[in-house]
Amino acid sequence: MRMDPINLYEYEARAKQVLPHNHWEFIEAGAMDELTTARNRSAFEALTLRPRLMRDVTDRKISTTVLGADISFPVMISPAEGHTIAHQDGECATARGAGMSHTLMMCSTTSSNSMEEIAEAATGPLWFQLSHRGYDFTEHLVKRAEAAGFRAIVLTVDAPIPTPKERDIRNRYQSPGEYGNFRELQSRASGASGGDEPPPWETLRCPPLTWQELDWLRSLTKLPLVLKGVRDGEDARKAVETGVDGILVSTHGGRRFDGDMCSIEMLPEVVAATQGKAEVYVDSGIRRGSDVLKALALGATAVAVGRPLFWGLAVNGAEGVHHMLELLREEFDRAMAYCGQHSVDQLEDRLLSIPREWGPFRTENDIADHIPLA
Amino acid sequence: MRMDPINLYEYEARAKQVLPHNHWEFIEAGAMDELTTARNRSAFEALTLRPRLMRDVTDRKISTTVLGADISFPVMISPAEGHTIAHQDGECATARGAGMSHTLMMCSTTSSNSMEEIAEAATGPLWFQLSHRGYDFTEHLVKRAEAAGFRAIVLTVDAPIPTPKERDIRNRYQSPGEYGNFRELQSRASGASGGDEPPPWETLRCPPLTWQELDWLRSLTKLPLVLKGVRDGEDARKAVETGVDGILVSTHGGRRFDGDMCSIEMLPEVVAATQGKAEVYVDSGIRRGSDVLKALALGATAVAVGRPLFWGLAVNGAEGVHHMLELLREEFDRAMAYCGQHSVDQLEDRLLSIPREWGPFRTENDIADHIPLA
Amino acid sequence: MRMDPINLYEYEARAKQVLPHNHWEFIEAGAMDELTTARNRSAFEALTLRPRLMRDVTDRKISTTVLGADISFPVMISPAEGHTIAHQDGECATARGAGMSHTLMMCSTTSSNSMEEIAEAATGPLWFQLSHRGYDFTEHLVKRAEAAGFRAIVLTVDAPIPTPKERDIRNRYQSPGEYGNFRELQSRASGASGGDEPPPWETLRCPPLTWQELDWLRSLTKLPLVLKGVRDGEDARKAVETGVDGILVSTHGGRRFDGDMCSIEMLPEVVAATQGKAEVYVDSGIRRGSDVLKALALGATAVAVGRPLFWGLAVNGAEGVHHMLELLREEFDRAMAYCGQHSVDQLEDRLLSIPREWGPFRTENDIADHIPLA
Amino acid sequence: MRMDPINLYEYEARAKQVLPHNHWEFIEAGAMDELTTARNRSAFEALTLRPRLMRDVTDRKISTTVLGADISFPVMISPAEGHTIAHQDGECATARGAGMSHTLMMCSTTSSNSMEEIAEAATGPLWFQLSHRGYDFTEHLVKRAEAAGFRAIVLTVDAPIPTPKERDIRNRYQSPGEYGNFRELQSRASGASGGDEPPPWETLRCPPLTWQELDWLRSLTKLPLVLKGVRDGEDARKAVETGVDGILVSTHGGRRFDGDMCSIEMLPEVVAATQGKAEVYVDSGIRRGSDVLKALALGATAVAVGRPLFWGLAVNGAEGVHHMLELLREEFDRAMAYCGQHSVDQLEDRLLSIPREWGPFRTENDIADHIPLA
Repeated sequence: MRMDPINLYEYEARAKQVLPHNHWEFIEAGAMDELTTARNRSAFEALTLRPRLMRDVTDRKISTTVLGADISFPVMISPAEGHTIAHQDGECATARGAGMSHTLMMCSTTSSNSMEEIAEAATGPLWFQLSHRGYDFTEHLVKRAEAAGFRAIVLTVDAPIPTPKERDIRNRYQSPGEYGNFRELQSRASGASGGDEPPPWETLRCPPLTWQELDWLRSLTKLPLVLKGVRDGEDARKAVETGVDGILVSTHGGRRFDGDMCSIEMLPEVVAATQGKAEVYVDSGIRRGSDVLKALALGATAVAVGRPLFWGLAVNGAEGVHHMLELLREEFDRAMAYCGQHSVDQLEDRLLSIPREWGPFRTENDIADHIPLA
Repeated sequence: MRMDPINLYEYEARAKQVLPHNHWEFIEAGAMDELTTARNRSAFEALTLRPRLMRDVTDRKISTTVLGADISFPVMISPAEGHTIAHQDGECATARGAGMSHTLMMCSTTSSNSMEEIAEAATGPLWFQLSHRGYDFTEHLVKRAEAAGFRAIVLTVDAPIPTPKERDIRNRYQSPGEYGNFRELQSRASGASGGDEPPPWETLRCPPLTWQELDWLRSLTKLPLVLKGVRDGEDARKAVETGVDGILVSTHGGRRFDGDMCSIEMLPEVVAATQGKAEVYVDSGIRRGSDVLKALALGATAVAVGRPLFWGLAVNGAEGVHHMLELLREEFDRAMAYCGQHSVDQLEDRLLSIPREWGPFRTENDIADHIPLA
Repeated sequence: MRMDPINLYEYEARAKQVLPHNHWEFIEAGAMDELTTARNRSAFEALTLRPRLMRDVTDRKISTTVLGADISFPVMISPAEGHTIAHQDGECATARGAGMSHTLMMCSTTSSNSMEEIAEAATGPLWFQLSHRGYDFTEHLVKRAEAAGFRAIVLTVDAPIPTPKERDIRNRYQSPGEYGNFRELQSRASGASGGDEPPPWETLRCPPLTWQELDWLRSLTKLPLVLKGVRDGEDARKAVETGVDGILVSTHGGRRFDGDMCSIEMLPEVVAATQGKAEVYVDSGIRRGSDVLKALALGATAVAVGRPLFWGLAVNGAEGVHHMLELLREEFDRAMAYCGQHSVDQLEDRLLSIPREWGPFRTENDIADHIPLA
Repeated sequence: MRMDPINLYEYEARAKQVLPHNHWEFIEAGAMDELTTARNRSAFEALTLRPRLMRDVTDRKISTTVLGADISFPVMISPAEGHTIAHQDGECATARGAGMSHTLMMCSTTSSNSMEEIAEAATGPLWFQLSHRGYDFTEHLVKRAEAAGFRAIVLTVDAPIPTPKERDIRNRYQSPGEYGNFRELQSRASGASGGDEPPPWETLRCPPLTWQELDWLRSLTKLPLVLKGVRDGEDARKAVETGVDGILVSTHGGRRFDGDMCSIEMLPEVVAATQGKAEVYVDSGIRRGSDVLKALALGATAVAVGRPLFWGLAVNGAEGVHHMLELLREEFDRAMAYCGQHSVDQLEDRLLSIPREWGPFRTENDIADHIPLA
């Protein structure tokens, strides 16, 4: 008799046992000293929820909508590169798992399966995560995503340059490199009359991605646009001004840059800056259902999980992803009950106690202004 | 020559040696990541007492009253499920131990012994902890408690839904499931003419417990009413307005919910909100007599201990409970002397130094108000 | 070739090797959980000194006076019970060591050697630490101390009741119990015509010691009076008003009470309250010469060391005490140079950076005033 | 196949493997309890950078100038005693490595190679670090440095007296003691007619170094003057008033004094005090390229590294120094990109989030003013 994992940490522990070491490390690693990765977790633990009792919370509404798509609870799947390193069925399995939990999955540009394959396997809503690698590529990808039924474009803005993780360098890690979306692309190119074969994905450099590109991007599609990685109030305000529909506050799990504030710490600044004109989501560090409520209390519409999807996949494929999500659902639902909340649409104020050292954060200007000149 | 334990931590260490592992873990575990359980302890250690010297404190009055019941010092026994997992004599032994120390015991709805058996064994005052599981049950229990001489009803409000602890899930822990109060109930039901046998306790769901239920509950009995688990100023004020007589600030030892503020941190807010119109007690994390004085300095009338009663029971039955309490008494009394206090009725101000990051706690609203929009 | 210890921590390590375990633990232990003992050290480490450079500090004056007695640097020997547990020559050796370093020693009422023996061995100034155990005893001791040439009375006020340390209880520690001062006393009593033999020291209880006793005590002697253990501004102000000459801020090394603020944390409040009308000293936790400068920057006239005297004694008798003091002197002198200070009599402002969470400390009243009633 | 180290910590780990223990410890050790050494690192990690995205930062200008000398990125080599303990080619190898990275090296008075040898090997700009050991010596050294093409004098002010490190004392560490600059000096002296041979370097005492000496020093040379070790606003202002051209905020890597604030903590106070009238640099604790950006955000023109030069040298001589610098360059450049900065000359505000407990630091005066007299 073997028991299913009972929380996300047990999924993590079992995934470590079943994954090849290098794949395990690719999933687990953060950038450089992994300070941000650790901070993503410790910051959630420093927030405390306030139990509100003596209320009838028998019927708790935890379903919500993200950009109009119904999800059964406010936890989504973050976009992440090639899922086949964790399970042979790759993103198709993840999509089935997310669908079983009636929630949304964001699919990466560099998914193992093609977006069309994923769309076919999926029963829940999908968003397409876009890594901009040139105008032609982007146009091609966006139009395919729209055609395949994806319901939003999630543009990654927090990876301006490539940043290999140090554990991967030490492991001489080789990504399997099978990118479903480019397989399609390449075969189409080959089949086209006189068409040039596109260069392999790995050789493409990130072109500059600026606010100017957003107008062009929006001209390609009617799909709503989410920016992934914004973590600054000024940037968030500018995003809203350019008509962005959602912001996913993310540190990329601490995998791209190190020594920055973590996602949940920056969430309040972004929420304040958007002034309700865009939905705000957050990922990086969510491991417990109570974290979901903490994020919602700070203004997020929903959260997303990255590494945990790989743990679920590695342990038990689509079923593992589904079960991992159900654990979060059960914990989140219990947190709602303990805090006396009956609906995610009407969370009351004062759910959180926030460490005194948290924002609004002091900057170099704040302290310079107050240094007494001797 | 074997020495008695000399403090509560030594009781804990010995209890671990003599208890079956699963029972030990059931007692020791907290909910989920056990953050609140740990915080219950670290928060007490972060408070510091202020020695006041050069006073004649030879005669120190440490006896007090709780809702009119005399207790020899301000430490009570918290309600806790089935004591027979620690000692065959169960709550009867605990009650004898508490009585030897001339203090009060709160008895759980799910005690191993029936409330009548405990009342017979007890020599000190008793309060009955009530878990609401339906109107009939509750009425039945409250009337029995009143008849058996219990002197107050302690209504648990901090367990709105069931929450198995993760260590217990891993251990596939099976509670012995002998609930004295339902044994009586079932036999009575069987004997009654035409009466239906009540369903087993484990299958009962927690019905919603709201402020409305309080009026009904008070109509059942003249006994004073204590709410166990309130940890919010607004809830505390409402409790006082509905005529509640006492509030036991509790995290349930961190056993039901995780990631909330600990009891001693929330005590000042509850005390301020009650404005002296109800007595306030606190449990969760008390391990040293100095903790008792810290709680009193923050406005508590008395404190209660939960896990330590099991340690005392496991090591030496009623004598162990008594001795465990005497250790706390001696330490508390010494703390009184070192702080120059001669009576718990007239503690002076400024006994404590409180970490700067402690309350009044900042909430999500406080920081939102101060985020500068860029 | 064996090297002398190069700092106080090395003395500590070597003392542990050469002392019987129970004696070692008696010296090292603090009360209960030893939180205050640890805090005495961590608080010093949390303070940082500010280097001031480009000054000619070739000639640094580090000698000072304490109540008119010249000492070669502001480090004294704290009073401590029976030194023979560390070295057969007991306090006589300590006194010789202190004298070699031209500093002052405070001798305990419960010294192994009699005060007259110590006075004979000493070459530096001595103060007599007084434990009040009744009017006759105290009068007898004070008059002897005055006759033996002691230059001040240090009245211990921070031990209102006996508090055995838990390590000593576990070790079933037996003090050698040879109290030089009572040997004299007992032989005198025996020789006196018709005199009753006084009861043994261990059986005496601490009588209440209050501000009233101070007037009486001052009537016995012209010697200046120091109160040891005051740690509260109000108590300090009262001490000054009653004409006390000095205050030794002390936690008794954390050996008597636990869970209180440490000495160096309370020093500023005491200094502010005395308003320069009494000298203020501090002990508990001093291990580095930089700690001495930190204490002086916060307003102390001098500091004293307790456990380190035992380490010096255990390792090398009088020479060890002397060398231990010389290490502190060298470190202190170096700290003076790095901070650009040429005289302990004219320390400049702004030598320290103090953690933001340090005093003036918040009390239960401060937070109660600011809790918003919901 | 053996991989080059991928960050400075890997250089440190490999250097430990290849260096004799005593040399390793000489390099690694800090003064006394090494609290400042540790703080130099933890303080950098407590600062967080703020990613600014959606900008075209393809072309990033990271080159800068220090006192008019062009360097390819704002990282220099700190002055450090005799490099031959890490590599036989000593400072000549370091200079070659710095030159390959097109940056500046500061050479120590007590270099293993003579300044002329280093100048010959160097391809990048050099500054001469001056330890003042008497007027004649200093004049001799400064004139030689000017003649050899050094471009600034870096006067060390943070070592007013000698302070052997405790690890070195325990190791009975013997510096190889080959000081290239005195070899030259001694041979010149020997060759001079009737000249007295100068005493060996080790026997020289530090003469007092005060603000008065600066005027004299400036009269010796037209070279710009940098003060190394200033960490106080008042001292910094005075330095600027006397016409100093640059200040290197340094704790000497925590190797000379312990228990003081670390370099990066004191940087803002120094920057504020100089009011732009002198360049400010900082060393002590820089291990990651993001640290460089943090220092620049706080007002530094450039940073310098000390221990890492030994690690690079030990692992791979000049190539190791060069590669160590290139790792920092790559990391720094990536930090610029992630923070949306295109030029070190135009860093925008609000790049950092600074812990609330950081300066302006509270001093003993600040708390004394606020202690309520009871």
